[in-house]
Amino acid sequence: MDSIKKILVADDGKKFFIRSLTEDFHTQFGFVAKAALAKAKPGDVLKTNTGKELCVFEPSFMDVYSRIKRAPQIIPRKDIAAIIAETGIGKGSVVVDAGTGSGALALFLSNVAKKVVSYEIRDDFAKVAEENVKFIGLKNLTVKRKDIYGGIDEKNVDVVTLDLPEPWKAVEHAAKALKVGGFIVSYSPTTPQVSDFISAVAKNKSLQHLKTIEIIEREWEFNERVVRPLSQQIGHSGFLTFARKVKK
Amino acid sequence: MDSIKKILVADDGKKFFIRSLTEDFHTQFGFVAKAALAKAKPGDVLKTNTGKELCVFEPSFMDVYSRIKRAPQIIPRKDIAAIIAETGIGKGSVVVDAGTGSGALALFLSNVAKKVVSYEIRDDFAKVAEENVKFIGLKNLTVKRKDIYGGIDEKNVDVVTLDLPEPWKAVEHAAKALKVGGFIVSYSPTTPQVSDFISAVAKNKSLQHLKTIEIIEREWEFNERVVRPLSQQIGHSGFLTFARKVKK
Amino acid sequence: MDSIKKILVADDGKKFFIRSLTEDFHTQFGFVAKAALAKAKPGDVLKTNTGKELCVFEPSFMDVYSRIKRAPQIIPRKDIAAIIAETGIGKGSVVVDAGTGSGALALFLSNVAKKVVSYEIRDDFAKVAEENVKFIGLKNLTVKRKDIYGGIDEKNVDVVTLDLPEPWKAVEHAAKALKVGGFIVSYSPTTPQVSDFISAVAKNKSLQHLKTIEIIEREWEFNERVVRPLSQQIGHSGFLTFARKVKK
Amino acid sequence: MDSIKKILVADDGKKFFIRSLTEDFHTQFGFVAKAALAKAKPGDVLKTNTGKELCVFEPSFMDVYSRIKRAPQIIPRKDIAAIIAETGIGKGSVVVDAGTGSGALALFLSNVAKKVVSYEIRDDFAKVAEENVKFIGLKNLTVKRKDIYGGIDEKNVDVVTLDLPEPWKAVEHAAKALKVGGFIVSYSPTTPQVSDFISAVAKNKSLQHLKTIEIIEREWEFNERVVRPLSQQIGHSGFLTFARKVKK
Repeated sequence: MDSIKKILVADDGKKFFIRSLTEDFHTQFGFVAKAALAKAKPGDVLKTNTGKELCVFEPSFMDVYSRIKRAPQIIPRKDIAAIIAETGIGKGSVVVDAGTGSGALALFLSNVAKKVVSYEIRDDFAKVAEENVKFIGLKNLTVKRKDIYGGIDEKNVDVVTLDLPEPWKAVEHAAKALKVGGFIVSYSPTTPQVSDFISAVAKNKSLQHLKTIEIIEREWEFNERVVRPLSQQIGHSGFLTFARKVKK
Repeated sequence: MDSIKKILVADDGKKFFIRSLTEDFHTQFGFVAKAALAKAKPGDVLKTNTGKELCVFEPSFMDVYSRIKRAPQIIPRKDIAAIIAETGIGKGSVVVDAGTGSGALALFLSNVAKKVVSYEIRDDFAKVAEENVKFIGLKNLTVKRKDIYGGIDEKNVDVVTLDLPEPWKAVEHAAKALKVGGFIVSYSPTTPQVSDFISAVAKNKSLQHLKTIEIIEREWEFNERVVRPLSQQIGHSGFLTFARKVKK
Repeated sequence: MDSIKKILVADDGKKFFIRSLTEDFHTQFGFVAKAALAKAKPGDVLKTNTGKELCVFEPSFMDVYSRIKRAPQIIPRKDIAAIIAETGIGKGSVVVDAGTGSGALALFLSNVAKKVVSYEIRDDFAKVAEENVKFIGLKNLTVKRKDIYGGIDEKNVDVVTLDLPEPWKAVEHAAKALKVGGFIVSYSPTTPQVSDFISAVAKNKSLQHLKTIEIIEREWEFNERVVRPLSQQIGHSGFLTFARKVKK
Repeated sequence: MDSIKKILVADDGKKFFIRSLTEDFHTQFGFVAKAALAKAKPGDVLKTNTGKELCVFEPSFMDVYSRIKRAPQIIPRKDIAAIIAETGIGKGSVVVDAGTGSGALALFLSNVAKKVVSYEIRDDFAKVAEENVKFIGLKNLTVKRKDIYGGIDEKNVDVVTLDLPEPWKAVEHAAKALKVGGFIVSYSPTTPQVSDFISAVAKNKSLQHLKTIEIIEREWEFNERVVRPLSQQIGHSGFLTFARKVKK
């Protein structure tokens, strides 16, 4: 998967992703010549051979992120956002993540944090994630082929994020890896998983401030007098449970 | 308001914020001597004169953020998170924000973005925000005493965030300030404000991909067999409307 | 559409609706002889010619209601229920309803109330509704081919329910038809419709206690350890606005 | 607690409940003479001795229901409504309910159904419920001082409603009491209660069509341009689980 070099946008907002500057790019509106593609700067307007105007954009993080390869179930952005909101992950943060899956969570956090290390035991998933890292062009994300249930190598970590079938098996390791003041976060679709994770956290006296939330996003239609929530809404994704290391 | 130097945490998770290392710190459990405070490192355990153990934490962004001075209505973190989730604000992003208010949104975004400029016309609010900037110790946030309805000085901006009574008055200025591919976001509590903002956006042909959402956060109790959403929940805060600049 | 005489239920809960007792009834499991159908009593177990056992049920209101002919958009049961919950419609209540549509709301309320009169101007809808009334076998529901925007004939009504594109045009008529203490209820999908309805209500000094709600139903999966809200949920249907006549 | 004879309503919607027609009624606006109270008909306007006008209303079911004595936790009307919506309880229905508590659910259902029998083992609760039955003037509701975990006397019941700490203990009895086609409904605040109830239902082969929902009611403000969900909302009350008897 080549990285996205440029994006062309039609009048109606439709986007075309340019992965090569050495070939003509064909669309339903005709083609754009490679010479024009190579010279184009953000905001320029290119014309296809049939005269259709296409506007040039520099690919932003969200454009590229929206095109990564995805495992069947990825954590939605509303939930990634809630992790950032609760833990305050920022430019200085070091994050350990597991399991990587296609890397969606780790990639999003890498765009915000200083450094992210993501644990994955399945080689096929790790390969997809590494391809996504390369595609998106991030330098601060490492995919580590290792079982997080067996231990965490990193120390003094700000946040540990867990999207695992049995997150309780990683609680002791996370507690050791975290700095005092750091957060452990678990994302699980079902309530018994949350209960078992919380039992494991409660046994560890260094972890406190347990909190579990779910985030519901409602999309609305605003179109003249048609102002209403959409009839179709996304349903449940998962519960987010947070705890904090308060002492060694 | 002095910045927070260290945090002490009691067994039950209660936090004490230390703003001076040259005075003894008094708690309901007795006092901690200034000499001990000055030498304490994260993870150390200090004792009060009555023998109560308190654990030392380095203040994280969220600890300090939770103590800023607040205007009566600030945008909640669930909504700040949704702005990051939709726009992909990251370490490389330049953001223009208005109105500053107490600076809660601008401060949170500054912890993630490269640079934030926040417009405020009320001098009293600007002062509170500047105090908060100093308190939280961020270097990349500037509070600008200027009316955003009159124009935006910055160019090539990634995201413009508006938390204003009449956000439609800033649409043209935002569209000019944004880079192609950049996002305009408006946060409004009521649906007629959203409708009027959307009408203004629809008149500007460079802005596309309108989307309006609201975020509902449900907190849950997990305590042995007591597994249930809380009886008391936060209600509505505001609607978030996003659009994107797709051409010059 | 003949009325439902009996229901047969297979082991897995699948239901078969018997509309004729003078013909054999064919299923994928073979047929049940007409003689057996005619004699069957609720709770009996019939056998098809292939030996499959089918249990006999007396059709309940919900079985028949679930099979009425439906116009494209009917008010969902969660919203019908909220009307009953707020107004206390019961065995003694007289209700005026408009517009009838396929009659779903009027039919449901007729199963609870003493008498329902439902106004409809479209003859095609009125015919469908009348077929549904006959099919469901209710005696206390009348479909009236009349424009409710032109007036309401009934007096001393307990509740007026409006599911109309311009419910504000029926407010004055409803206020006259209601007894003191009676309720007017409007069901609208969009917020501007609610705003306009409320403006009309506010102009009528006999109507007070305005209240607008929306009902969100979340369905859950409980299957051993898989305890979670469904990933697919019904989105928005409409807003319900209630007011009460407090004086002549 | 005397029954409510008449209701007086002030201009602003404030209601006064008249329980005696043989005494003057005192308000903050002066008093209404007993002679006037005795003669007043619905819709009449009475004057206090200070000239304040009060409108006369006949008490409706909801007026009286809103004044019953309540145990600390009663099932909210939104959830009662969902029971009616799912089961189609109507004028012909026979319902068995347990535990009675203050009788709120049983009273509401009695206003809709033909007959309700409500089981309660605590004598203090049964007394409150019987007072409420008398106060509200319903003839078709019987409070039975008996443990439903020990059995149900009634046969051929349309719906059994359970609001009990251990509803699974009543499943076998409910299955026997129900007619084929009837519904069992359980209301529980927590997910482990729902799980245990569902396990008990799954063991009984006559019960099928399991479904669990929760109802979220959002109240809205509509006041000129202030159109928004309220900042304060009711949180969680309970989960409703339904199953249906499909064979003997």
